[in-house]
Amino acid sequence: MNQHLHLITLGVEDFKKSRKFYTEILGWKASSASQDDVAFFQAGGVVLAIYPREKLAEDALTSPEGSGFAGITLAYNARSEAEVDEIIRDLKSKGVKIVKEPQKVFWGGYSSYFADPDDYHWEVAYNPFFAFDESGNLKLD
Amino acid sequence: MNQHLHLITLGVEDFKKSRKFYTEILGWKASSASQDDVAFFQAGGVVLAIYPREKLAEDALTSPEGSGFAGITLAYNARSEAEVDEIIRDLKSKGVKIVKEPQKVFWGGYSSYFADPDDYHWEVAYNPFFAFDESGNLKLD
Repeated sequence: MNQHLHLITLGVEDFKKSRKFYTEILGWKASSASQDDVAFFQAGGVVLAIYPREKLAEDALTSPEGSGFAGITLAYNARSEAEVDEIIRDLKSKGVKIVKEPQKVFWGGYSSYFADPDDYHWEVAYNPFFAFDESGNLKLD
Repeated sequence: MNQHLHLITLGVEDFKKSRKFYTEILGWKASSASQDDVAFFQAGGVVLAIYPREKLAEDALTSPEGSGFAGITLAYNARSEAEVDEIIRDLKSKGVKIVKEPQKVFWGGYSSYFADPDDYHWEVAYNPFFAFDESGNLKLD
């Protein structure tokens, strides 16, 4: 298996609410491959999908039961501390739950978190040690 | 916030065990940015990180408590059904837990799932409706 992660699916409780969050609050455009109960978002070099949680569990032959911290976080890497502040200020003005206000963190960066409708945690961070490629994806050695 | 997901972090119970899984079983190469308790993997156009679950929750100002289905799945998109079979056969021979044997699925593709040491679910699928760009990332309209 090559070193590649192509797509991440978030299992969501209320599909319409989540689709509205990603399309109207974050302002993302869904792919034409999206259907009534699945939405795909080209999110740089990876695709983010949302799909009803019960159906996702069924697809993975797994019980949908689960609670508390998902254990997985998603991150958007900004180009500066100011961009982090701007994004969080904008999301807050739209009523998004800010979990961690932007702040300097121990590893030398600047980080914040917001929550999506299923309480999945998105970090919005500036990491001065990370570089981007020409497509805007992170590029690590 | 631009339409971009840069990095995904898996909160893991046993960091050394997970690092060994990703580096030795999957055969992935960790980035030089990795440290004693965090490993970064350039996984195509996105970075996959592993980090102790308790520290990840602490970073997100969240309780680490959580159980059952994480609600999020990761996917590797293969180029053919045969590649799916080959990957799963290889992982199975290495003792990896296969959650769903490769099979044709209702949406017209061919799909399987394996589990990593924290029971995070990885789908290995062939989707005849998805295209790739020149970097091997999915490219949706």
